[in-house]
Amino acid sequence: MTYCVGVKVNEGLLFASDSRTNAGVDSVATYHKLFVFPQPGERLIVVMTAGNLAVTQEVITRLQQGLQTDDPFSNLLLARTMFDATMMVGGLLRRVIDRDRAYVQSFGADVSSSFIVGGQIAGDEPRLFLVYPAGNFIESEPATPYFQLGETKYGKPILERILNPQTTLAQVAKCALLSFDGTIKANLSVDLPIDVLIYKANSLSVGRHQEISNGDRYFADVCSAWSDGLLHVFDSIPNPPWAADDA
Amino acid sequence: MTYCVGVKVNEGLLFASDSRTNAGVDSVATYHKLFVFPQPGERLIVVMTAGNLAVTQEVITRLQQGLQTDDPFSNLLLARTMFDATMMVGGLLRRVIDRDRAYVQSFGADVSSSFIVGGQIAGDEPRLFLVYPAGNFIESEPATPYFQLGETKYGKPILERILNPQTTLAQVAKCALLSFDGTIKANLSVDLPIDVLIYKANSLSVGRHQEISNGDRYFADVCSAWSDGLLHVFDSIPNPPWAADDA
Repeated sequence: MTYCVGVKVNEGLLFASDSRTNAGVDSVATYHKLFVFPQPGERLIVVMTAGNLAVTQEVITRLQQGLQTDDPFSNLLLARTMFDATMMVGGLLRRVIDRDRAYVQSFGADVSSSFIVGGQIAGDEPRLFLVYPAGNFIESEPATPYFQLGETKYGKPILERILNPQTTLAQVAKCALLSFDGTIKANLSVDLPIDVLIYKANSLSVGRHQEISNGDRYFADVCSAWSDGLLHVFDSIPNPPWAADDA
Repeated sequence: MTYCVGVKVNEGLLFASDSRTNAGVDSVATYHKLFVFPQPGERLIVVMTAGNLAVTQEVITRLQQGLQTDDPFSNLLLARTMFDATMMVGGLLRRVIDRDRAYVQSFGADVSSSFIVGGQIAGDEPRLFLVYPAGNFIESEPATPYFQLGETKYGKPILERILNPQTTLAQVAKCALLSFDGTIKANLSVDLPIDVLIYKANSLSVGRHQEISNGDRYFADVCSAWSDGLLHVFDSIPNPPWAADDA
């Protein structure tokens, strides 16, 4: 499994992904799922991946190979818009699954893969997209300022409670880590390290690219402060009157 | 969809279920999913249901019809143990799906159904079981004091954080309602009213059977106190040092 979150707020974008890949519980490995395509001062594009690792690796490899061409439909750094860049990711995904699906399914496996694509190209706003397994995609809007990939349900409630376009990037980073904490606690196939990339609107360069590994002091502190705080809030709320000890 | 929670703590048992049934978003109805088989002073058995409504209704109807017989393998009130009672539920489930599966699947629908069965029979401890769609089942133990049915993921983290065998039934009730709150907010197909039944160990009778409907004052208060409390805890935790505004 995988867990990735992409967030778009007024201040910019945040991308976070775990690094665990598994094919059964006895085949677990660490693979990064967050890929950066930078052209400092002109654009920054980030792609996060989930799903069949052979499929997503080929899509990323073809994106990297495309950087050698001068074709704006093959080279992410020449794509005219973030929409065109996302179309490129969806198109590569379709090529791979058109070719591989029958072979993979004959072994009972699944080619399904999905992507979060975000970034900014000079002259346009920061944008954030979710590419479905079918290769089509949707764009974030202020009422829905985030997308998730993979094991989405455990970590969704905190995103829903906290995020809105006014949330600062520093708050978004804290919120994303708590969303990962809940997911990691609930699903063994999601785990550290977490790759976090912060992009400040109009900076056209990487703001911060942080890896949160086992033993990370801030991550441990934020998770334990959250856990203690929730227990305190829970205790502070009265029990149901109809469940009193003499009920 | 459905959401049900069954909890076993030292003080007794708690059962809670939503009441929404849907076959597509344009076919939504209210059906109760919590069924009580009482024999005051001798036993109390509770069955909660999730899955294909035709299947679960038939299982419940056959359990109710079985109450007219004097067969301990057909009459829940004569079952010798909670294990036998749960075996009865699993056996009825298998009979129904053996007969219906091919017909239902020919319309692309799913016969899958699952149950939580719990209660106490005089001379034994309170016990709590989860019946899988295959009709086999598992029993709760202190390290895992709860079972869920249906839309389980959104509401699981709070159960994990709060519940242990020492949790009081009043706290369990508060925790269950918060688990429902998170699930209802995330999944349109889970909704009020919530049926809550509290069973005190060794009472051999219903402690409290409460319906939480729209407009329930305590439910509204507990959800808003929880929401406010979480936002306060979130704000009180420092942002990541590497995400400071000058990062």
